[in-house]
Amino acid sequence: MRILVAVGGNALLQRGEPMESDRQIKSAFAAGESMARIAADNELVLVHGNGPQVGLLALQNAAYKEISPYPLDILGAQTQGMIGYMFCQSINAAMPEKKVVTLLSRVQVDQDDPAFADPTKFIGPIYSKEEADALAEEKGGIFKQDGEAWRRVVPSPVPRRFLEKDAIEKLISEGMFVIASGGGGIPVIASESEGYLGVEAVVDKDLSAQLLAQQIGADFLLILTDTDAVYENWGTPEQSKIGNITADEIRKHDFPAGSMGPKIDAACSFVEQTGKRAAIGSLTQAEDIVKGTAGTQIMP
Amino acid sequence: MRILVAVGGNALLQRGEPMESDRQIKSAFAAGESMARIAADNELVLVHGNGPQVGLLALQNAAYKEISPYPLDILGAQTQGMIGYMFCQSINAAMPEKKVVTLLSRVQVDQDDPAFADPTKFIGPIYSKEEADALAEEKGGIFKQDGEAWRRVVPSPVPRRFLEKDAIEKLISEGMFVIASGGGGIPVIASESEGYLGVEAVVDKDLSAQLLAQQIGADFLLILTDTDAVYENWGTPEQSKIGNITADEIRKHDFPAGSMGPKIDAACSFVEQTGKRAAIGSLTQAEDIVKGTAGTQIMP
Repeated sequence: MRILVAVGGNALLQRGEPMESDRQIKSAFAAGESMARIAADNELVLVHGNGPQVGLLALQNAAYKEISPYPLDILGAQTQGMIGYMFCQSINAAMPEKKVVTLLSRVQVDQDDPAFADPTKFIGPIYSKEEADALAEEKGGIFKQDGEAWRRVVPSPVPRRFLEKDAIEKLISEGMFVIASGGGGIPVIASESEGYLGVEAVVDKDLSAQLLAQQIGADFLLILTDTDAVYENWGTPEQSKIGNITADEIRKHDFPAGSMGPKIDAACSFVEQTGKRAAIGSLTQAEDIVKGTAGTQIMP
Repeated sequence: MRILVAVGGNALLQRGEPMESDRQIKSAFAAGESMARIAADNELVLVHGNGPQVGLLALQNAAYKEISPYPLDILGAQTQGMIGYMFCQSINAAMPEKKVVTLLSRVQVDQDDPAFADPTKFIGPIYSKEEADALAEEKGGIFKQDGEAWRRVVPSPVPRRFLEKDAIEKLISEGMFVIASGGGGIPVIASESEGYLGVEAVVDKDLSAQLLAQQIGADFLLILTDTDAVYENWGTPEQSKIGNITADEIRKHDFPAGSMGPKIDAACSFVEQTGKRAAIGSLTQAEDIVKGTAGTQIMP
């Protein structure tokens, strides 16, 4: 079976934990063992998030004043290298005979995507109102209030096409474990005269994962996170775990827009477009989720 | 013809120039045009340096005090993502129909390489003697005097094997332009129980390039730099350009250990081991160097 696995940036790092590299490496090695258990019998492509990591690079860029902070597409490319490397190493540790490769991946978005007119995704360090105004004046960018502080917001356009798709498919068909489209992919737009231009935007990792899953003909979309399944009425006394459910049925529920909403939407889109199965569950139960005995299984 | 092109990190940035991202992108686009002219008729693999870029990441890591600086293997992986992305974009701008891919690349080195006992390669920020002593005490690492200041030194072991070699070959044979082994590759050692372990070392980019050229069966090793050829008596009134020369002959000359020495050594090794041609010259004359009408051509 060809499986596309999507893993959040928080698989390497719990929210609020300091971003030390050794913690991330340790988490990557634990994740590698989970994935090795399913990679033994299946073709695997891994798409990982990069939210906390790109945030750290933005802070480091801001702290070193001699050079202007690098744009978000370049920072995203840096995180693809860093996180891809950690996963390569961790998967190789769990399955030494497997060839594991990380492909730098760009994803084309539409220049006229409505997201560009209404940036909503918070990124990078927090500022006071005065600092934010000064930065906007000096370097451009849009800043919005996030709680007490101000942060930069960037657009989150819809992914359309993976520039490295043929390379990804070729390497999977050679039996390699492919890590691709990290952080959702580096967003680029097609330009008339200069090939593709990087844009300061963030592509939702789960949305990218489901589209890539379709484009490479994956049989199963596996979205791994830090909860064991999708819950109804999460955080209330009535909360109950959802096991097997159809895409139609789960679409009728209301889920918070935060982290679970986009995952469910991505999983449903994959199921609706392909008639194949998707599931959402915990990284540590990956093997059972593939077997269909754990997680929330979303059926056509 | 299958060509391995090695380009210095200074192809993106002249020494002493500030490390702004837009300058590097501009340089990458100029380099992309040069490479597109030879990629039209040949199979190309690009190995690039990363010295200035990894230096900047080390400075940014040092400036942001909340998190310990990341180890050198992870910073190297970040530069592979960043520089690989810039070259992907620039080559695509020059040849939109070409599939260009960057592969994160690890290179295996020997755990008992003598370089580990005698680190010689300066990296990262400069410190006072007191700061260097404190850092060595606190975090380990060896610091040596570099001019007036103190800097960290790391080993530069000999590259032995490219973990991503099969993927590189597969993608070249599909007609793709492959960017690989950036910064000489991320050095790893084989471990008994954990697959490969990253090490804090720097692999010489030209040495990696020549070995990768051998291992993928390249017909020609092209080392591009910022001078148009190798010169005898460089910087003296008697300086003279070397055109065609045999590996035996050029080995008899003395060259400064700095930047040209390792390039000549790498080129000669390739020629001696394979009986094929290598050349050293300017990025802007790449097309003529391939034709054999510019640069220093080193023959068996």
